[in-house]
Amino acid sequence: PNGRPTFSTDDGAYAFSVGLAFHEDFGGFFGQGAPRGNETGRPPGFTQNTRRMRLFFSWRYKDWVANVTPDFGGSNEMAAGGSATAQYLYEANLNYAGFKNTVLTVGYFQPRVTEEDSESSNDFMMMERPGITDVVRKIAAGDARFSVGGMHFDKRWWIGAYFTGQSYGARAANTATINSQTGGTFRFAGRPVATKNVDVHMGVSAISAFHPTLVGVAGTNSGNYNYGTLSEPPELNFGANGVAATLNNVSDIWAAGPELGIRYKDFLIKSEYYHIGVDRSHSTPGTYLPSYNFQGYYVAGNYTLFGQGRRYNFREGAFSAPGVLNEFNPAAGQWGALELSGRWSVTDLNDKGAGTTGMGGRETIWSGGLNWYPNRHFRVMVDYNRILLSHSPTSWATHGRDLNSFAARIQAAF
Amino acid sequence: PNGRPTFSTDDGAYAFSVGLAFHEDFGGFFGQGAPRGNETGRPPGFTQNTRRMRLFFSWRYKDWVANVTPDFGGSNEMAAGGSATAQYLYEANLNYAGFKNTVLTVGYFQPRVTEEDSESSNDFMMMERPGITDVVRKIAAGDARFSVGGMHFDKRWWIGAYFTGQSYGARAANTATINSQTGGTFRFAGRPVATKNVDVHMGVSAISAFHPTLVGVAGTNSGNYNYGTLSEPPELNFGANGVAATLNNVSDIWAAGPELGIRYKDFLIKSEYYHIGVDRSHSTPGTYLPSYNFQGYYVAGNYTLFGQGRRYNFREGAFSAPGVLNEFNPAAGQWGALELSGRWSVTDLNDKGAGTTGMGGRETIWSGGLNWYPNRHFRVMVDYNRILLSHSPTSWATHGRDLNSFAARIQAAF
Amino acid sequence: PNGRPTFSTDDGAYAFSVGLAFHEDFGGFFGQGAPRGNETGRPPGFTQNTRRMRLFFSWRYKDWVANVTPDFGGSNEMAAGGSATAQYLYEANLNYAGFKNTVLTVGYFQPRVTEEDSESSNDFMMMERPGITDVVRKIAAGDARFSVGGMHFDKRWWIGAYFTGQSYGARAANTATINSQTGGTFRFAGRPVATKNVDVHMGVSAISAFHPTLVGVAGTNSGNYNYGTLSEPPELNFGANGVAATLNNVSDIWAAGPELGIRYKDFLIKSEYYHIGVDRSHSTPGTYLPSYNFQGYYVAGNYTLFGQGRRYNFREGAFSAPGVLNEFNPAAGQWGALELSGRWSVTDLNDKGAGTTGMGGRETIWSGGLNWYPNRHFRVMVDYNRILLSHSPTSWATHGRDLNSFAARIQAAF
Repeated sequence: PNGRPTFSTDDGAYAFSVGLAFHEDFGGFFGQGAPRGNETGRPPGFTQNTRRMRLFFSWRYKDWVANVTPDFGGSNEMAAGGSATAQYLYEANLNYAGFKNTVLTVGYFQPRVTEEDSESSNDFMMMERPGITDVVRKIAAGDARFSVGGMHFDKRWWIGAYFTGQSYGARAANTATINSQTGGTFRFAGRPVATKNVDVHMGVSAISAFHPTLVGVAGTNSGNYNYGTLSEPPELNFGANGVAATLNNVSDIWAAGPELGIRYKDFLIKSEYYHIGVDRSHSTPGTYLPSYNFQGYYVAGNYTLFGQGRRYNFREGAFSAPGVLNEFNPAAGQWGALELSGRWSVTDLNDKGAGTTGMGGRETIWSGGLNWYPNRHFRVMVDYNRILLSHSPTSWATHGRDLNSFAARIQAAF
Repeated sequence: PNGRPTFSTDDGAYAFSVGLAFHEDFGGFFGQGAPRGNETGRPPGFTQNTRRMRLFFSWRYKDWVANVTPDFGGSNEMAAGGSATAQYLYEANLNYAGFKNTVLTVGYFQPRVTEEDSESSNDFMMMERPGITDVVRKIAAGDARFSVGGMHFDKRWWIGAYFTGQSYGARAANTATINSQTGGTFRFAGRPVATKNVDVHMGVSAISAFHPTLVGVAGTNSGNYNYGTLSEPPELNFGANGVAATLNNVSDIWAAGPELGIRYKDFLIKSEYYHIGVDRSHSTPGTYLPSYNFQGYYVAGNYTLFGQGRRYNFREGAFSAPGVLNEFNPAAGQWGALELSGRWSVTDLNDKGAGTTGMGGRETIWSGGLNWYPNRHFRVMVDYNRILLSHSPTSWATHGRDLNSFAARIQAAF
Repeated sequence: PNGRPTFSTDDGAYAFSVGLAFHEDFGGFFGQGAPRGNETGRPPGFTQNTRRMRLFFSWRYKDWVANVTPDFGGSNEMAAGGSATAQYLYEANLNYAGFKNTVLTVGYFQPRVTEEDSESSNDFMMMERPGITDVVRKIAAGDARFSVGGMHFDKRWWIGAYFTGQSYGARAANTATINSQTGGTFRFAGRPVATKNVDVHMGVSAISAFHPTLVGVAGTNSGNYNYGTLSEPPELNFGANGVAATLNNVSDIWAAGPELGIRYKDFLIKSEYYHIGVDRSHSTPGTYLPSYNFQGYYVAGNYTLFGQGRRYNFREGAFSAPGVLNEFNPAAGQWGALELSGRWSVTDLNDKGAGTTGMGGRETIWSGGLNWYPNRHFRVMVDYNRILLSHSPTSWATHGRDLNSFAARIQAAF
């Protein structure tokens, strides 16, 4: 971003830069309704989490760029549901930018899919993406995903497609792994209206894990295609459990859906819907394993009270954070930028036609938040969530549960 | 520090720097007296340890500063008693420095408490802090502690207070954690005498864990406030066990005590005493759990043989390392700086009134060391320790044990 | 290397640089012959591995240099045979360069032994070193090995010797460790012929673990000198097992052998042979434990099709990568540099005289590869291996096995 420390040679052939994404969260849950028979998934009353702590190192030589971004936050410090995995690389990739408005990439990358995932995490309206966006992107994209592909943008449209493999560290996390997952992503976004006061964004995203990870079975030469778990904490990453569907004997997973966003002056409204299909392999000849169908959607609105409202970033095919017109300086009566966000988000991992397996629960979250930007590099967020978890035979919310959360984030971006 | 690579924009609005604290130790223990019936805690005869390997990244925009400091030493490589935890962040915090001589901080930080902890680890007289200082600071401060607070200094006084939470990675290290610890620190230091030849430092430090970590009990909705262990290796971090008091059903822990330091020309003497109180919660109604009372103290002296002696740093409210007047250059007959240190340190985690629980042992250590500074960025330390461990029903030194250590540190600081 | 971002003060007293070694591999195994009775060590059909992801930080003050190099690849992501260890530091050392053509080093370092190990990994002919080179160097050298020693070079000769200790993180990886390993390395290389068209390299390397790690036995005050395992994947680090000899009751291990390399214009041929001896301690009085004798060798050839061929680097006492005479620029008909490599490599950890213990298997690998350099900072490698594993009573290849691999590496170096 602008303001990142960057060092170039006079002839422009070389550039080196070091950036930062610093997201530190604290807060907790309160007012939990009766758990009625279920005893796990205790949400913390007060805790802290280093959500992102990324150091962006970039070396450029002419049209070739190498990026490496260690991440000292994320699952280092806390993983949803408590499994501490070892991801501490956000990105490590090589890029060729010799074609106009185009970047070709090989290596660990976050291939963008869905509008919310296409925004920089520094720009999010709320502290976390909607549940369904996170579930969808993790199928075959997400942070530090091995990717081969490219993206191209123009003022009115954006397109990107990637072949994807494992996430960084996946083999170390499960040493019984034989073949890594193969998958792919596709996203196309257009901007049919682009005027001073109005922007209309429309898009479609699709993702698939063609072959889930093949995990060896001890003592045999064969393995299982067990995808693991589609899961999502209740839109706050403090270790509390939300929905979680454990998927065995998976032949492939796919998800697809439309994106919509409309800006009118400093007001922005966005919505996305995704359907997830899980096709399953026959574990024994003649045994039929049903497919699962899940879904989710959200509607989010945002209004910038002070400062320049959110604007369309055609390089991302997504909306970005408000602009700070007057940096925080109380002596001069300047207060930075302030925006108000609200969201209704549903993540439904219950497939009622499929019996008890694959029933991961249904999560409805109403959220409201305020974001304050003293200047363009720093931000403070506060978010309130009202969380409703519906019955599932397999998750912690067996008989349903409702609770609230209140949390804050301090952020720096260079 | 001076000499750290720092890059600024011409208008002074932006600055970026990359620093280093490199402390590599090697050596071992010898001459151990008869263990008399106890078989654990084998001190190594020869080993190596990356004590600190910190990369300091700092981004400043006007009065706002973001610091991130990965640490590739410390518990990455070796933890006292052998528990390899995953801390690899020394600091990650945001600061506002818009008020004169004041820094307000949020994030993972080392909130300073006690005189020894207020010194930079690059400036230590001996390779390790006195045992009691380390025990006290770890109650609710120490490296990478989530902190919200501030400090203010002037030429004659220093004050700092922080609300503190968990240490970085605490939830990943114990995934049964529900609520993170809450605590706080306070330190006030004054400098009643400040002349060319004499400095007198007086101070008081206090620390408390108001609520220890609430750890969930499997299969229930409740948890225990088990603090864990107050422990300390024998003033050398090579994996050997020293004192260790395991504390269960803790309602709060506090520690407080005075600081004193006197400099006369190039001679310095320092002493601190701390009392630790552990209040305990009733595990079952009607059951009385006794409080514990521990204590510790040290007296340390230092004389600079060549170079400028240790001086008072009012920005830290503490003494700092000697100055190198003539850099190492044998051809010119220049040898850098050399200082001699000695220390008597007692860490007493035995509360004889409390029965066998909470009896962590008593450690008395006599130390001597030489520190050589070829220039202001590099240092070589050698330390000898004579270690006396008294009887305890719970630690490895059940019937007492005595031994010696000899170790060296190579250090670079930028 | 040239092109690394480096920042110096005008007086030359200070320099700071940040470099990169980025090696990302992908590919897999195919065409495996019948395993005939053995069921472990399943080689992946397709996977990815961050082979090296090193950030080189270096601070210099006059003749004193501090280097710290975190590595986010290597065993972080995948270890041969599946054991995920925690090495994520490639180097952390202090150096004194005040004597001409000489570097004295203390700290975690890669002390160079054998010609292949003396080359930068950025310059390798094939994706991996020959098996025997890797087995030999890991005895008491390898990445992040605690070292004290120095090297000196001149135009016609190179000499280096190091006392070595543990590898970084070894105590955390095995918390029962008492004493760390002690060992040493020695290498001397000469260049009897050095003309425009011809270079002849001759050398000898030796390495020894004088005392393997002393690992404590639970419940006692004593320990065992168990070296662990000499092992090597089949010249591709994708988690598949190759040869592996587990060594207990070791008193010392040594290896030594000659190096030979001849360049004629752009054609290069290299060969090395090493013998490994394992002396063993008597576990109980009167019991004789036999020594083991292992060996390995390789012959490798290389021809540069476009670009300047591999040249001798007397600073390393080894050959380095081809030079790019014309950077990739299809419009100008420039295609960078391209080279062709082939290798025959044998790693024999079977000592038939020693009975079933210490029989680690025998691995013969025929390899061919192409390396393309669009410019001097980027490289793409593709390697084919034909792998023959002979019978061993203890490894996965009990009755022998043969298979093929095909893999690619993308590389950036700054």
